[in-house]
Amino acid sequence: MTRRVAVIGGGLIGRAWALVFARAGCEVRLWDPDPKVRARALDELAEACHLSGDDPAALAQVTVCADMAAAVDKVEWVQENGPEKLEIKREIYAELDRIASMETILASSSSALVASRFATGLPGRARILVAHPVNPPHVIPVVELCPGPDTAPEVMDRAEAFMRAVAQVPVRLACEIDGFVLNRLQAVLLAESLRLIEQGIVTPQGLDDTICHGLGRRWALLGPMATINLNAPGGVKDYLDRYGPTMARLSDSAARGEAFTETAADIIAADLPAPAQVQELSRRRDTRLAELGRFLRDND
Amino acid sequence: MTRRVAVIGGGLIGRAWALVFARAGCEVRLWDPDPKVRARALDELAEACHLSGDDPAALAQVTVCADMAAAVDKVEWVQENGPEKLEIKREIYAELDRIASMETILASSSSALVASRFATGLPGRARILVAHPVNPPHVIPVVELCPGPDTAPEVMDRAEAFMRAVAQVPVRLACEIDGFVLNRLQAVLLAESLRLIEQGIVTPQGLDDTICHGLGRRWALLGPMATINLNAPGGVKDYLDRYGPTMARLSDSAARGEAFTETAADIIAADLPAPAQVQELSRRRDTRLAELGRFLRDND
Repeated sequence: MTRRVAVIGGGLIGRAWALVFARAGCEVRLWDPDPKVRARALDELAEACHLSGDDPAALAQVTVCADMAAAVDKVEWVQENGPEKLEIKREIYAELDRIASMETILASSSSALVASRFATGLPGRARILVAHPVNPPHVIPVVELCPGPDTAPEVMDRAEAFMRAVAQVPVRLACEIDGFVLNRLQAVLLAESLRLIEQGIVTPQGLDDTICHGLGRRWALLGPMATINLNAPGGVKDYLDRYGPTMARLSDSAARGEAFTETAADIIAADLPAPAQVQELSRRRDTRLAELGRFLRDND
Repeated sequence: MTRRVAVIGGGLIGRAWALVFARAGCEVRLWDPDPKVRARALDELAEACHLSGDDPAALAQVTVCADMAAAVDKVEWVQENGPEKLEIKREIYAELDRIASMETILASSSSALVASRFATGLPGRARILVAHPVNPPHVIPVVELCPGPDTAPEVMDRAEAFMRAVAQVPVRLACEIDGFVLNRLQAVLLAESLRLIEQGIVTPQGLDDTICHGLGRRWALLGPMATINLNAPGGVKDYLDRYGPTMARLSDSAARGEAFTETAADIIAADLPAPAQVQELSRRRDTRLAELGRFLRDND
């Protein structure tokens, strides 16, 4: 039976999700409150397909709906991509919870808000969770599944199975945590990067080269735990025996929030492509990410 | 004219360097104090070539030398890969500085010791630096070039040009810093990872998936600064305006050295391949890193 999915919000993230679901064979209902967004959604989806090399035939699976109730009718999954504003999220979830069948899972793409902020008190809070993607999810497969305190474990099981079925890589978190996992890891790396750059120890380009031609290559294949497991003859415990004290010392002297300064931002901006190039470079990035994804899949 | 290079130390890192230099067309002189290491060095180089897909014909460029003075005679570059013990490094550099022509650059693969620890006071301290690779350098191209307080800027210029000439990606640091750049970044990410795992928020596999199928893919293509430059319509300054306060908050609450616990190590070890598999998995990693490197080079 064809799986039926709703995507709420037709911005970049919503459209990328629509593509993920459609190419996996789901029937996708896309809704956005803005009629202009709805009007151009299919053209923009075709463009995204072109950049990522996905088969545009998948887009036949996508229907743009004129109202939210029609979009969520009889779907198994709702992926919500509204603004990261608490009041708006609360309104959306109150409405979604009222109109969607109790069997339907309601998942938010929120990176900033945990589910308890907008689901607490709702009758259907047990079927609400955060499914946080990386931008854009059609070319980066990881999705963090973060339950609220009221999310049912059975919903988490279904959420995990659903994301695997649409070929994403779900990472299940045990409980709510600010920033989930991915952005917590990104934050510490950015803080230390910004300080090293502001202190003039390395240029922004040098910092990027260090990751891009160094750790990033390893981490695209293995992840940090699998990486250190291979960096000592006796595996991860041997690694942490040998290098743990050094790594602890380095992290003790690492930068924190104070590193996010205007000065650092200015130095980095001066060394990177200007804002006018952001759109074109983003398109190029998506094409390359899609190619890299196919390479990694074919060379696993 | 063929460039002539010496590699001091025939362990994993030394052999990987020998391969980097040989495939770039340099004449390579490899020396190790242990005759057993010397005896098997060429066979092990052939094996490394096989795993990485490098042309074994390059190995005709490598000569294993029976003494250090013969190895460093008339070379432009010495890459030293001795043990990370200060007394041994000091002995090696006193000897290298005595026997090598003053035109020769002396570069250490040390990840733990900065050049001032072993070069201070030597007559040739101006030509001594750290050239810290990622393990193994023949499949991961980044190399951190870290001067000591006495290293001549002209030597740093030559070091950078030399590393580019052998197709590595040099990252030039302005001054000595504990951990250089790469391990500082790895340390903060590991600290936060270990805590999230020890607290049970995510499994080791989930943590690895978050990077491997998430941030690692971006970072293999772009580096963290280029990444955030594309994550807001107005570029990096727009990104830091929008998300800087959140990232600062997340890094303020991040783990530090206290996260490197025995408990975390036990949880991770239980979820990862056992030490008996490390050697085989490392060989597989090197093959895949070489394939990824070729993919990235051909799809730049």
